[in-house]
Amino acid sequence: MPSEQHMKAALQAYIDGFNARDGDAIAALFADDATIEDPVGTDASNIVQGKPAIIEFYRGAVHAVEEMKLSAPIRASHGRAAAMAFEFTMHWDGNVVHTNVIDVMEFDENGKITSMRAYWGPSDSKVVGKAP
Amino acid sequence: MPSEQHMKAALQAYIDGFNARDGDAIAALFADDATIEDPVGTDASNIVQGKPAIIEFYRGAVHAVEEMKLSAPIRASHGRAAAMAFEFTMHWDGNVVHTNVIDVMEFDENGKITSMRAYWGPSDSKVVGKAP
Repeated sequence: MPSEQHMKAALQAYIDGFNARDGDAIAALFADDATIEDPVGTDASNIVQGKPAIIEFYRGAVHAVEEMKLSAPIRASHGRAAAMAFEFTMHWDGNVVHTNVIDVMEFDENGKITSMRAYWGPSDSKVVGKAP
Repeated sequence: MPSEQHMKAALQAYIDGFNARDGDAIAALFADDATIEDPVGTDASNIVQGKPAIIEFYRGAVHAVEEMKLSAPIRASHGRAAAMAFEFTMHWDGNVVHTNVIDVMEFDENGKITSMRAYWGPSDSKVVGKAP
């Protein structure tokens, strides 16, 4: 089973990958058949599955996000899961938008992420200024 | 579907219930057949299910916890789920122990919690002093 330290390092690498705008480094944290539900609660067509789709997803995402940071220390679990509260800013439609998120990640025996679920709703996303 | 505002208010009421040491008020947030997995990742025998067991669980828990507070604003989702990063202190074996947690809650159509999953590992719990 992946250690708590391994899982926490993977989640920190996820944040660091965004700030380095390195979508491939983020995708490399995932297992080949992993799934991404971002945000949780839309329909199944929104779920990203498989490494090619995951690479495409993060290559796009890292260029949309201006800055990402933890809101609180990463949490592990007693099993193969970890979770983190984080926040990010992006430019959208001429505005700077700030969004609060909690991601829950599950891992396989090899320490790769098999599932990412992102909890954020419309009320967690706010315009905080005009884009430069 | 329960609104984001409803779900966030329920999670805040959960925190407030701990600080008021009112286990029944917390249990009242849950559906009759709800499940609690706290912490995530131990075996199935650790899962609390059904209102009588949930009432018993929270009546005990509120007396163990000294203080609970959010680590960051509560997150909702685009569906029937919400999540929060929080932290609490408790007295344990003569020590004050501080623990970081992320809870993910799912709701039914009536706005009651059907599932609570608590993400925290041994590395998220630390002795921070001697109990008075």
